[in-house]
Amino acid sequence: MSDAPEQQTVDDAAARRELYALPLDRFSAFSDGVFAIAITLLVLQIGVPREGVRVLPALRGQWPELLGYYISFAFIGSLWIMHSGVTRFMKRGDGVAYALNLLLLLFVGLLPFTTDLMVTHLSGADARIAVLIYGVDLLLASCVLSLLILYLAQEPGLLVDDIAEGTLRRVNRQRWTAIGVNVLAIAVALVAPQVAAGLYLVETTLLLIIPLLGLRRHRRRRRAG
Amino acid sequence: MSDAPEQQTVDDAAARRELYALPLDRFSAFSDGVFAIAITLLVLQIGVPREGVRVLPALRGQWPELLGYYISFAFIGSLWIMHSGVTRFMKRGDGVAYALNLLLLLFVGLLPFTTDLMVTHLSGADARIAVLIYGVDLLLASCVLSLLILYLAQEPGLLVDDIAEGTLRRVNRQRWTAIGVNVLAIAVALVAPQVAAGLYLVETTLLLIIPLLGLRRHRRRRRAG
Amino acid sequence: MSDAPEQQTVDDAAARRELYALPLDRFSAFSDGVFAIAITLLVLQIGVPREGVRVLPALRGQWPELLGYYISFAFIGSLWIMHSGVTRFMKRGDGVAYALNLLLLLFVGLLPFTTDLMVTHLSGADARIAVLIYGVDLLLASCVLSLLILYLAQEPGLLVDDIAEGTLRRVNRQRWTAIGVNVLAIAVALVAPQVAAGLYLVETTLLLIIPLLGLRRHRRRRRAG
Amino acid sequence: MSDAPEQQTVDDAAARRELYALPLDRFSAFSDGVFAIAITLLVLQIGVPREGVRVLPALRGQWPELLGYYISFAFIGSLWIMHSGVTRFMKRGDGVAYALNLLLLLFVGLLPFTTDLMVTHLSGADARIAVLIYGVDLLLASCVLSLLILYLAQEPGLLVDDIAEGTLRRVNRQRWTAIGVNVLAIAVALVAPQVAAGLYLVETTLLLIIPLLGLRRHRRRRRAG
Repeated sequence: MSDAPEQQTVDDAAARRELYALPLDRFSAFSDGVFAIAITLLVLQIGVPREGVRVLPALRGQWPELLGYYISFAFIGSLWIMHSGVTRFMKRGDGVAYALNLLLLLFVGLLPFTTDLMVTHLSGADARIAVLIYGVDLLLASCVLSLLILYLAQEPGLLVDDIAEGTLRRVNRQRWTAIGVNVLAIAVALVAPQVAAGLYLVETTLLLIIPLLGLRRHRRRRRAG
Repeated sequence: MSDAPEQQTVDDAAARRELYALPLDRFSAFSDGVFAIAITLLVLQIGVPREGVRVLPALRGQWPELLGYYISFAFIGSLWIMHSGVTRFMKRGDGVAYALNLLLLLFVGLLPFTTDLMVTHLSGADARIAVLIYGVDLLLASCVLSLLILYLAQEPGLLVDDIAEGTLRRVNRQRWTAIGVNVLAIAVALVAPQVAAGLYLVETTLLLIIPLLGLRRHRRRRRAG
Repeated sequence: MSDAPEQQTVDDAAARRELYALPLDRFSAFSDGVFAIAITLLVLQIGVPREGVRVLPALRGQWPELLGYYISFAFIGSLWIMHSGVTRFMKRGDGVAYALNLLLLLFVGLLPFTTDLMVTHLSGADARIAVLIYGVDLLLASCVLSLLILYLAQEPGLLVDDIAEGTLRRVNRQRWTAIGVNVLAIAVALVAPQVAAGLYLVETTLLLIIPLLGLRRHRRRRRAG
Repeated sequence: MSDAPEQQTVDDAAARRELYALPLDRFSAFSDGVFAIAITLLVLQIGVPREGVRVLPALRGQWPELLGYYISFAFIGSLWIMHSGVTRFMKRGDGVAYALNLLLLLFVGLLPFTTDLMVTHLSGADARIAVLIYGVDLLLASCVLSLLILYLAQEPGLLVDDIAEGTLRRVNRQRWTAIGVNVLAIAVALVAPQVAAGLYLVETTLLLIIPLLGLRRHRRRRRAG
């Protein structure tokens, strides 16, 4: 109160800036929480065949729900892997990084809904729009993650060292492939939505299989060694 | 048992006090958990249009649910950013800080319910009371967070250093703006509830955009540099 | 494979023991997760009055649900505060501590169900049995926590230092009060279930208010200082 | 852009490898999250008897739901104990470990659904197939965890020291018992599904009791000492 008004404004700005030098551990913990909950809520969308209904035919009719669980689990999982790969290079967060992250989590948190929407309408008259909405949600999550990486690459003060910056830039260039496939899937969805869903199936299976190829290569190497 | 009764009372009080020198990491982890779950449960309130129903008209009719997801996500997110900004200055917790935090989380944990209440009745006869209840929940969460900050600012033993105290006091002064907007929204809700919802939309969008303005300033700075 | 069978058994036992020298950070993180989710799931049991139904009369009729949210939130919260106070003295976990903790979380994880059961039947013909089941769940959680504290107090190898052992013993003696109130509430539930619910309301409010009294004392101290 | 194409490919591969040297803390935190949420979601499958319905007869009729809560809680809990025992020996993760972990969590995350499926149909015409699906989900989770342990045992670069490798190999040999019981339960399910459910009840109770036997031994030792 006794400060001169200008001084106070400067101090307020400094306090605000200092407050926004946000801790990385909570940035990671909160993100892990939202990713983990979104990925686990997916299971609630698979309806359990009621008592008295034959189980196998019912589950066979529910293939879109099982497909939706699988592809959204894999997409959220791979976004999370990328996210945890990125925070490894971070030292701390700031207001922009926190806001971009919140925006990313907003689209990730929507995925249980857009997945449910897609699988409910996948074989119906509105398959096109349902798959499109799912694809756009996925694309937005993917793009905001890229934007976050790009921002971090330009803010050396948030990164652990100089190598990190170059690494983040190269990683982001590789992310264009994933984003390209997402855009392609959206375009396909407008013509043949079931084909787009198939494309997601292939993409997510590759996302899981490509790292596991390392397992095979690793075995061969050991046998040779 | 062999202690003199008075001695035991003293020891018990000491043990209780020692027990309530509570660890900061669990204070943060539990809070992150509740914030993350409350923010992710919001998606469950968006109903998925049933099979056979036209998707776009259905979603258009569900605009209050989508709006509710957006504004509550942003409010919970910004409360969490403020919360994690505050714990950065903490060294440890005590019984009061834990109790205030629990009270804060009680109101945050109610938000999925009060949001659902608001969006269900936003265009009905009871819009006034529904928006009012939402506003009061939000206001209480906001006030308890301010009370927590105020308490911490007066307890140097819980903070990392002396600078932290002054910073927390300044931050709390700035929080009056946010609380003022919340009170205003409640007053508006009594007259025109839809306008109050609009006010929340503007406020949360500003909450997300203001930090992102840093992104633009940052780009201009780089181009000039 | 080349080991003598006896040697292998010894090694297996050693490996098993070594594997069960379990890390404290995951013990805490998993417990925080279950506590945080159980406390946040409570909100799902509060039904939102449907569109067209008058909000205030509906909520007034739902007072048991709101009461249930409040008391279970406070009970889970205070169990968590006690739990995090205890882990502060731990250095690591072992198989017994992990198994007791899992049993504790089993009863905590049931609370959203037993709370829902109690509030659904609080004013019905089966109020007695519903409040009784809730009380027994709460009592079991409380007793397993005490058992965990007792076990830790007897295992210096799991604690940070010798002082911790004495502190844990004293804390456990004080816990008999809480357990006594729980037993009393169960006895009351058999005669007058609504009174037992009232007793829970008083107990949880005291649980929240007692630490906050520190806030008042603290203010007076500052004014005097 | 100015790099020679080959050099860039090498750099890209290096960046990718470096990015996949993933942090252990987030590996653990995300896994803790999914385990904790899956275990807590189990409670949602226990239906609350409606107002006016007699509570005790209703709960007696719901014994499969209560059984399902218990056995899946114990199975998820024991998978988590094993998982946290394993990460204790890890220094960091890589793409393969992350992908295997994601696959493990995919099957863990399905358990609330397969549990619900089993308990809904346990006394119906399709008990066989329902218990079979539950058993296969459990077996897959168990096998992927073993595969993860096996992979880690072969990658000294991910482990804290050389002792860890031998320990992990021995632990994995002991896991064959658990996997054997799971295979047996599946075989039994094809003939007598209720017996298989009983087998799960015995197995999970042993999983909880075996560590607690340490408690009894420990008491006897203290009395003798």
